[in-house]
Amino acid sequence: MNPYPNSRYELSRRGFLTKSAQGLGLAAAYPLVSQSVSAHEHGGRKPLGIALVGLGGYATRQLAPALQETEYCKLTGIVTGTKEKEKIWSDKYGIKEENIYNYDNYDSIADDEDIDIIYVVLPNSMHAEYTIRAAQAGKHVICEKPMALSVAECQQMIDACQKAGVKLSIGYRLHFSPYHRRIIDLAKGEELGAPRYVQSEFGFTIGNPDQWRLKKALAGGGAVMDVGVYCIQGSRYATGLEPVAISAQEFKTDPMKFGEVDETVTWQLEFPNGIVSNSTTSYSLRTNRLYVNYQKGRAELEPAYSYRGLAGRINNETLDFGRTNQQAKQIDGFVKTIWEDTESEVSGEEGLRDMRVVEALYKSIAQGGKRVEI
Amino acid sequence: MNPYPNSRYELSRRGFLTKSAQGLGLAAAYPLVSQSVSAHEHGGRKPLGIALVGLGGYATRQLAPALQETEYCKLTGIVTGTKEKEKIWSDKYGIKEENIYNYDNYDSIADDEDIDIIYVVLPNSMHAEYTIRAAQAGKHVICEKPMALSVAECQQMIDACQKAGVKLSIGYRLHFSPYHRRIIDLAKGEELGAPRYVQSEFGFTIGNPDQWRLKKALAGGGAVMDVGVYCIQGSRYATGLEPVAISAQEFKTDPMKFGEVDETVTWQLEFPNGIVSNSTTSYSLRTNRLYVNYQKGRAELEPAYSYRGLAGRINNETLDFGRTNQQAKQIDGFVKTIWEDTESEVSGEEGLRDMRVVEALYKSIAQGGKRVEI
Repeated sequence: MNPYPNSRYELSRRGFLTKSAQGLGLAAAYPLVSQSVSAHEHGGRKPLGIALVGLGGYATRQLAPALQETEYCKLTGIVTGTKEKEKIWSDKYGIKEENIYNYDNYDSIADDEDIDIIYVVLPNSMHAEYTIRAAQAGKHVICEKPMALSVAECQQMIDACQKAGVKLSIGYRLHFSPYHRRIIDLAKGEELGAPRYVQSEFGFTIGNPDQWRLKKALAGGGAVMDVGVYCIQGSRYATGLEPVAISAQEFKTDPMKFGEVDETVTWQLEFPNGIVSNSTTSYSLRTNRLYVNYQKGRAELEPAYSYRGLAGRINNETLDFGRTNQQAKQIDGFVKTIWEDTESEVSGEEGLRDMRVVEALYKSIAQGGKRVEI
Repeated sequence: MNPYPNSRYELSRRGFLTKSAQGLGLAAAYPLVSQSVSAHEHGGRKPLGIALVGLGGYATRQLAPALQETEYCKLTGIVTGTKEKEKIWSDKYGIKEENIYNYDNYDSIADDEDIDIIYVVLPNSMHAEYTIRAAQAGKHVICEKPMALSVAECQQMIDACQKAGVKLSIGYRLHFSPYHRRIIDLAKGEELGAPRYVQSEFGFTIGNPDQWRLKKALAGGGAVMDVGVYCIQGSRYATGLEPVAISAQEFKTDPMKFGEVDETVTWQLEFPNGIVSNSTTSYSLRTNRLYVNYQKGRAELEPAYSYRGLAGRINNETLDFGRTNQQAKQIDGFVKTIWEDTESEVSGEEGLRDMRVVEALYKSIAQGGKRVEI
């Protein structure tokens, strides 16, 4: 059942809508709006309800607080397998008992009118399944990055959301940071000429050796899947181009701790016209930078990928955009795409494109670093 | 004939010295001095004479002016194939007519008592020959980087200098910059812990398409041989380690201009203990940085590799060492190694080690980016 029959997909397939979806009568409440509707003009709408699936560190420390700052949606539900978390979250965020789910009754969320969007914040290996089931429950979906473990899974997720007529986006919060908006704008070449080279690094020192991020079955990979994805994204939006080939190299200092997943990986993306990016990601190095070289200058963000405290410069101009809650903007941005029936800039297709790079990256490593076409 | 029989090599092989070398009687004038002799204590010595071989841009704009600032040596000779340059240089620097040589009478410099050191500033392909002939003329030698076109050539140069009992150093000016001295010191790990990762870039936009730097026969390679060598050097002294393997990737935007040599190359050096460096060099990108990640912090120089105006920081401390004439310090440093009979920190062996990396780098490119052991 799809509560938002005004989505692009539904409009184009209106003839195929089921009677129950057509009969929901929400088209009047959420009429088609043009892309030019401003944030202000959404003011009169009822905020959408969002449920977080998986109450780990990111949901607890970033997303739930961000949802106290969103304008267009609010935290109305949770899905957790940990009984003790139910009361903690319920007390803290006033979540009604009937909006609390576990992994046994997850699918019954379909009938919950308080929940319009499901935000999947589970370990990577569960992204595809829980996104597809959310779509089947008729809910719009935000899925954390990395989108899934493979291009095939990404495609299944996209297909499931299209079939259900719900929107899908990936938790690429940095598209909603003013620092990264500048980088995205500069890719047009109007200010500093065409981008020619990107250098990017994102790594941190991972703690607890027992966490799911170090288990191949749950994480699908190591630093690449976790923070390396930011560098891949960054290289793509900084150039405004899709890479045509990749070479990648893997390095290990602790083969015990990183027995299942990659610790430090470097890779080079080849874009059309000989444009190159060179990146490093790591679970044992603290490094955090996005540098772009243009025909007529340079831009640099450092730290580039943190939740807050970003800094940077464009040539000699220091960037200072003050505080932004990236996640709040990201989630509100998704609601706007629902209301305006537009495609999210951080759509499932966008997540799939990164996964295509990730698959080629691991293939290159498996081939001793040889160049692999994407 | 070797005017400095107190060099380390000569001392160890004293029994093999020719009568003429032993009979030169300079041992009294330049007695063995301990390594602790300070610059001040050299004050009373007669500065050594130096001849520049090859009066191109670097000799003209950097080395000759630097030799007006050196304390321990002075520009006393030139070797040039361009007749017009003879008077220009003679007028500007007061070089005596008898100390002006061309490529026909180069070897007769052996008898010139005004010239103690020959500085080879010719195109790369001529480094080996002119260094070896300088050694055979009994002169100490400074050879510009890259030392030569191959490890084999480097070894021949080292052997020739050892045989002649003269000292050899490579024009690695940055060892004499206080910014890079800090990087070299930090490699000891006493301040910020062990180095763990190096990122380095050096590129510029090369002009005239007819210059020797773009001819394979003269340059031996492109950006790698020219400015990439600085990144290799930088990675080696920033870690204080020798690399064990390399992967390298080549990119071209202008296959016409860069028909014979590399335009943009990225490479990854693997050091012991899983320490990594990732570098980019280019003849079409302006980029100039050395970043080192340590267990307890970071150091960054940018610009890192310029002749002047270096800047940087160590964690949050901004580095400002004022003005240094890198080339003057480098050349004076070489004279000190002659007077003190010590091994130059930027010896021929040091140049050979970089060339070993360069050879492995090109081998990796030829193998499609596969990891090559060094």
